[in-house]
Amino acid sequence: MAMTLYDLCGRDERLRFSPYCWRVRMALTHKGLEFTSVAWRFLDKKALAFADYDKVPVLCDGDQVVTDSFEIMRYLDKAYPEAPVLGEGVSYQRVLLFKYFVERSVNPALFRIIAMDLFAAVHPDDRSYFRDTREARFGCTLEEFHQPEQGKQQLKQALAPVRDLLRESTFLDGDAPSGSDYLLFGSMMWAHVVSTQAVVEPGDPVEEWFKRMLNVHNGAASNALTVRDI
Amino acid sequence: MAMTLYDLCGRDERLRFSPYCWRVRMALTHKGLEFTSVAWRFLDKKALAFADYDKVPVLCDGDQVVTDSFEIMRYLDKAYPEAPVLGEGVSYQRVLLFKYFVERSVNPALFRIIAMDLFAAVHPDDRSYFRDTREARFGCTLEEFHQPEQGKQQLKQALAPVRDLLRESTFLDGDAPSGSDYLLFGSMMWAHVVSTQAVVEPGDPVEEWFKRMLNVHNGAASNALTVRDI
Repeated sequence: MAMTLYDLCGRDERLRFSPYCWRVRMALTHKGLEFTSVAWRFLDKKALAFADYDKVPVLCDGDQVVTDSFEIMRYLDKAYPEAPVLGEGVSYQRVLLFKYFVERSVNPALFRIIAMDLFAAVHPDDRSYFRDTREARFGCTLEEFHQPEQGKQQLKQALAPVRDLLRESTFLDGDAPSGSDYLLFGSMMWAHVVSTQAVVEPGDPVEEWFKRMLNVHNGAASNALTVRDI
Repeated sequence: MAMTLYDLCGRDERLRFSPYCWRVRMALTHKGLEFTSVAWRFLDKKALAFADYDKVPVLCDGDQVVTDSFEIMRYLDKAYPEAPVLGEGVSYQRVLLFKYFVERSVNPALFRIIAMDLFAAVHPDDRSYFRDTREARFGCTLEEFHQPEQGKQQLKQALAPVRDLLRESTFLDGDAPSGSDYLLFGSMMWAHVVSTQAVVEPGDPVEEWFKRMLNVHNGAASNALTVRDI
């Protein structure tokens, strides 16, 4: 039976940009698991009441309801152990550290670059919710937070270790993509879908890797609708 | 037969502060391998001619001569596969990324904090070599580069993902220390040995982890001579 993934959408229902949903989509695709996605918006809290949760992604797999993107990846590894994405033991610990790296060092830099693009991409009815929650988190207005050049510098510095690794590896996890790749790729898709800004410089190994990632699993992510298509 | 590790020393021959040598020492100890260390100084290039290399650590294991700290760790995993430190496959890829993180994001921040302490710790005969090579790398004088407060801010930010992980794990690699722990610990020992500065705030999970690390493997690192002991 196909699974159901509740996935954030924007002003166009086909616009899917959540970094957390993208990492799950890629993990599902990695394992060859079919899923139906349900477009969800920030204020649709009621639609998630069944999960006792108020954010996406939420995955329904038969009777199982799993919340939180990393928990979903972990669940998928346990329920469908073939082609692990996170792995176990030391391998799992190391990708858990990388998850924190993506969330603590990469995502804040990306947010600086795309804050106003994100605001424009969310559904008009969701915009005041988006503005209020983010401004409370940042302690300043979205307009003040939006500093693309500063964000690009911050991102360039944060990604230095990733760039080093990609000079000797095709994917972060080796010859084929796996959990680490999906975690970073999810965040890069966030920017790719909502913004026309190049977040890294042309020729950057991260840019080359991102293009390779768009093509893996039969180009699963390459057909994603972006703001350039609307 | 015991191995030989060429290890950087400072103004006191017992002062051992190289982050790259420390990670190897910890890997050897992790595997229960005995080794003799040979004190080496920056200008002792001739002493390493046999290895066709000009830096430490250099490990001699019978006929095998291995250079570069990470290559040594890798060699140890291949030659003594019990109790791996780096691991293989995806696990290896993930710790390789962490190595780059330590070298690109942690070490430069630490250097800002301890630049002048390091200068004082190296042997007087090595100081002009140390100054010249580092000033050429940084494009400014050691005195200008030495910005402890800036370095501490930089370190605090870089270590955010590590701090998150240590809130839920005893060691970076899980319930017991392994390669990731030794890579970061080597760098923290660099500061611990040469400087009286607290590089992280008291109560920081990284500080607590560092204390635990001093005690692992029968306190192997806890007896290291520091500048406070001379």
